[in-house]
Amino acid sequence: MHVEIWSDIACPWCYVGKRRFEAALAAFEHRDAVTVTWRSFELDPHAPVERGVDGATHLAEKYGVTRDEALAMQQRLSDVAAGDGLDYDLEHARGGSTFDAHRLVHLAAQHGRQDAMEERLFAAYLAERELVSDHATLQRLGEEVGLPADEVADALASNRFADEVRDDERTAAGLGISAVPFFVVDRAYGTSGAQPAELLTQLLEKAWAERPQVTVVGEGDSCGVDGC
Amino acid sequence: MHVEIWSDIACPWCYVGKRRFEAALAAFEHRDAVTVTWRSFELDPHAPVERGVDGATHLAEKYGVTRDEALAMQQRLSDVAAGDGLDYDLEHARGGSTFDAHRLVHLAAQHGRQDAMEERLFAAYLAERELVSDHATLQRLGEEVGLPADEVADALASNRFADEVRDDERTAAGLGISAVPFFVVDRAYGTSGAQPAELLTQLLEKAWAERPQVTVVGEGDSCGVDGC
Repeated sequence: MHVEIWSDIACPWCYVGKRRFEAALAAFEHRDAVTVTWRSFELDPHAPVERGVDGATHLAEKYGVTRDEALAMQQRLSDVAAGDGLDYDLEHARGGSTFDAHRLVHLAAQHGRQDAMEERLFAAYLAERELVSDHATLQRLGEEVGLPADEVADALASNRFADEVRDDERTAAGLGISAVPFFVVDRAYGTSGAQPAELLTQLLEKAWAERPQVTVVGEGDSCGVDGC
Repeated sequence: MHVEIWSDIACPWCYVGKRRFEAALAAFEHRDAVTVTWRSFELDPHAPVERGVDGATHLAEKYGVTRDEALAMQQRLSDVAAGDGLDYDLEHARGGSTFDAHRLVHLAAQHGRQDAMEERLFAAYLAERELVSDHATLQRLGEEVGLPADEVADALASNRFADEVRDDERTAAGLGISAVPFFVVDRAYGTSGAQPAELLTQLLEKAWAERPQVTVVGEGDSCGVDGC
């Protein structure tokens, strides 16, 4: 089965969702038959490279609340994340464009390191006050998960994988996805949000039980091991 | 919609099937919504690098017939291919392993040149007496379709994309595919063999009419453009 997970690096619920999906997958009997693809989704496609204010100030400005009120909102979310083993620092998160970070995730996929790259970027942004639009930062994070330094540099210096990011976003729009994380199994079943692991396991079980079988609708001339 | 086509370079019906699928796709109203992936399938996974006998002699030995009888069989197939605009030279085809050629098709996919690479390899083997297991030949053919020379050389010198080839073959086995070409639409409908273009168009239309919709089965905490 193929699980596609749309997410943004700058999405606190997405990292929580990643942890819960990992738990769900570990509890799923047929986990060896599951492949996972991380799909790009920018919550703010028009974000500047860097916002210049910290996460708490940005949240306060966005909702028109005080900084203390914003901090309280972030604390509630951080408390939930802590329950999933994540140590968030949303107050000091450095917001900005995640487009290049998503391009890096696509490069990582070519090296079998997509999950590691996604994980590294979530931690960098949500817990480590890293600016994930900064190319020197992305270069370092890419190398940390084992990507070839020259390929990371080439990708960052060019527009490589921009089409792949936009393809993911177009597909999301086509599927009606407007919030992340969003989990899709075999393009048949989907679920939005960081649901409890047990519910994500149920999604996998449902999709497994009802996984599509290929219906052969015709036959023509072909070649097999015994000839044509 | 996603169309996956399992084929082998050394499969005369596969190149015919490619032409007919192209015609089918051109006649399909929603062709812009179709993406095509070529999947690897080796008709003879144990083939030596080079057989040392030409295509007609190999066929005669395989079926225990005379060379003239083998030539007559090949002529009948070539006549059909000619009807699809293909100028086969099966008599002098240089048989051998297609594993490395399939690896090259996977590399080409990363550069958006998969279809061009598949096309080039079919023509090389089925029409131009090229030995598609020979690395110098594969290097030249890869460069001809626009792949970076260094990446082709790196892939050929290493085991790169071997896993991808075997993954395709495992998937084929899982789907019960034992002869190629084999066309699968959205993992829901499949058809084997080089069927007439009209029938392939009907397959696309049937799959389109019954294409799966994602059923959303639950909702949890998530982030959207308006916040988390």
